[in-house]
Amino acid sequence: MKENRIYNFNAGPAALPLSVLEEIKDSFLNYAGSGMSVTEVSHRSKWFDDIINDAVTRTKRLLNLGDNFHVLFLQGGASMQFCMIPMNFLQNGKTADYVNTGTWSTKAIKEARIQDKPIKVVASSEDKNFSYIPKNIQFNSDAVYAHITSNNTIKGTQWASFPDTNGIPLIADMSSDFMSRSFDADRFGLIYAGAQKNIGPAGVCMVIVRDDMLELVKETIPSMLNYNTFAGKNSMFNTPPCFAVYAVQLVLKWLDETVGGLDKMEELNAKKAGLLYETIDSSDFYRGTAESDSRSKMNVTFRLPNEEMEKKFIQKAIENGFGGLKGHRSVGGCRASIYNATSLEAIEALVDFMKTFK
Amino acid sequence: MKENRIYNFNAGPAALPLSVLEEIKDSFLNYAGSGMSVTEVSHRSKWFDDIINDAVTRTKRLLNLGDNFHVLFLQGGASMQFCMIPMNFLQNGKTADYVNTGTWSTKAIKEARIQDKPIKVVASSEDKNFSYIPKNIQFNSDAVYAHITSNNTIKGTQWASFPDTNGIPLIADMSSDFMSRSFDADRFGLIYAGAQKNIGPAGVCMVIVRDDMLELVKETIPSMLNYNTFAGKNSMFNTPPCFAVYAVQLVLKWLDETVGGLDKMEELNAKKAGLLYETIDSSDFYRGTAESDSRSKMNVTFRLPNEEMEKKFIQKAIENGFGGLKGHRSVGGCRASIYNATSLEAIEALVDFMKTFK
Repeated sequence: MKENRIYNFNAGPAALPLSVLEEIKDSFLNYAGSGMSVTEVSHRSKWFDDIINDAVTRTKRLLNLGDNFHVLFLQGGASMQFCMIPMNFLQNGKTADYVNTGTWSTKAIKEARIQDKPIKVVASSEDKNFSYIPKNIQFNSDAVYAHITSNNTIKGTQWASFPDTNGIPLIADMSSDFMSRSFDADRFGLIYAGAQKNIGPAGVCMVIVRDDMLELVKETIPSMLNYNTFAGKNSMFNTPPCFAVYAVQLVLKWLDETVGGLDKMEELNAKKAGLLYETIDSSDFYRGTAESDSRSKMNVTFRLPNEEMEKKFIQKAIENGFGGLKGHRSVGGCRASIYNATSLEAIEALVDFMKTFK
Repeated sequence: MKENRIYNFNAGPAALPLSVLEEIKDSFLNYAGSGMSVTEVSHRSKWFDDIINDAVTRTKRLLNLGDNFHVLFLQGGASMQFCMIPMNFLQNGKTADYVNTGTWSTKAIKEARIQDKPIKVVASSEDKNFSYIPKNIQFNSDAVYAHITSNNTIKGTQWASFPDTNGIPLIADMSSDFMSRSFDADRFGLIYAGAQKNIGPAGVCMVIVRDDMLELVKETIPSMLNYNTFAGKNSMFNTPPCFAVYAVQLVLKWLDETVGGLDKMEELNAKKAGLLYETIDSSDFYRGTAESDSRSKMNVTFRLPNEEMEKKFIQKAIENGFGGLKGHRSVGGCRASIYNATSLEAIEALVDFMKTFK
């Protein structure tokens, strides 16, 4: 590959489109004729306004969002959202439903409970080591929202379709599959995604919030933890993480113009994941860890016959230019994270390697 | 200048050392032989460990910090610290003292009061439009900390030396003069600085916190708002803002190796500010807005005979390659922000321009 770049299967921070990296590099000392690096431009300038407004416009177009949605760029990652969501929406003793599908859902639940919010866990796949997505969930009618994790990076599971909540607004942590497929956003009260998997570098979290959710915030809370602060100022109450927002804008432009939108992206992602799961299923040597109907198209988790062999596989892969194939430290095994920016070529090369290694 | 770069006097995000920008650019597609961009490298990798550990080590060396200090990289800027400081340290009804020297101090006070913390404002320069730094302040003996803003970007004032607090730990927002001079850090319980003025791009806030302050955190608060979460995990409880941390590391390396430390930096900054204030004081055409003994060496604020002339000055400056000279929108006038990365050459060019314009 160009500049001796590897095939990057990191779980996040993850691969970015090469054309985006090249554009950042080429303009790094002088952004858009400003005579400054994009890192040196004021966030109160026309240059940065154009960046953030373009990112918002493209997000709205890609997801087909109505005017009742606000697109925000916040700091602190998805982890900060675990805290902000209950703080903003569960005031005056209100309750919400959570579905537990793994490590990140568990953390979201923990941060609501730390604040003494009376939330309910209405379904969990913990009984089978989070290897599946629960079905036929009964949500509580008094829940202000129903929280799910749309894709589980560590366990390699993903909601194939979103649950019926009987009208309760969905809130989803989409960090690891955001913008990887089309979906009906109207059912969501809030969507959040740390950028460092599908839409940019680490350091910014996109939050999409619906007007009616913002009206729930009645109690006084610190400005930096209140969604209304950011919704009223186009994410510029204080200095935003400018470089990360800029990189996100370029990734969205790539998704919009080069890939051709979410339907095209979804098709390509299905093909990429399909190739890998076929390789895994075609032998007894590799074994997928997630139940078939819950498999993630973003994080393909698998095991080899034994740990010794897995260690060898990961080592040989590195020697052959494939990075990031080690499973999360909490579960072991192997994992190929194949977000939007991972090319079909990279998948084909990996499949060849897996066949040869076997 | 190289690549048609301008002389950048932005208040923040601000100029970065050209050598740092060039290093980022040159390695942007393949960081340190990793085969990945620095934005694509895992924060759990040796590459990123080396980056963050080097940034911590250099910070400790530059500021001569003992082992009882933790150097943290947080998100949300100084504004998030306004909220986190009272949340962590003023538990169980404890109180603290605040000195109000302008817009940012006022915001820090507001975010403590939003949380119903019984803080006291022990001094303020609001009576004279924040044009000076208060003297002979009486701090309360029951205060957990004494909060100051070391440099006021908007009003152009700066603490020439830090106040005697009778042993109460100082907490300082040093966003706009951090690493611009030497000082005795031992008197501080916590120091924080949004990176985008003196030490890097927007998107990361450095927090230096002393062990005994961390012990004050007793009540349960959300993980992402608790200093102990980050102190216990070398700032990697969740994914840190990797690119911004990397840029900070390079700026610290530049400060350490190219500039030669804080004494050298202080000397250069004094010379730079001196040249500008001399130019302002040598005529009736330009007029400094801060009282002489409170003048900032980072943000030189001044007025021209009338607003019409100021508009013309800023416009002519842009045409001549000087950016960012407009005063903050809340006060008007002119301002030259001359942080560490602003070269003596840039100051000399500005002085020439000011003389010609007059």
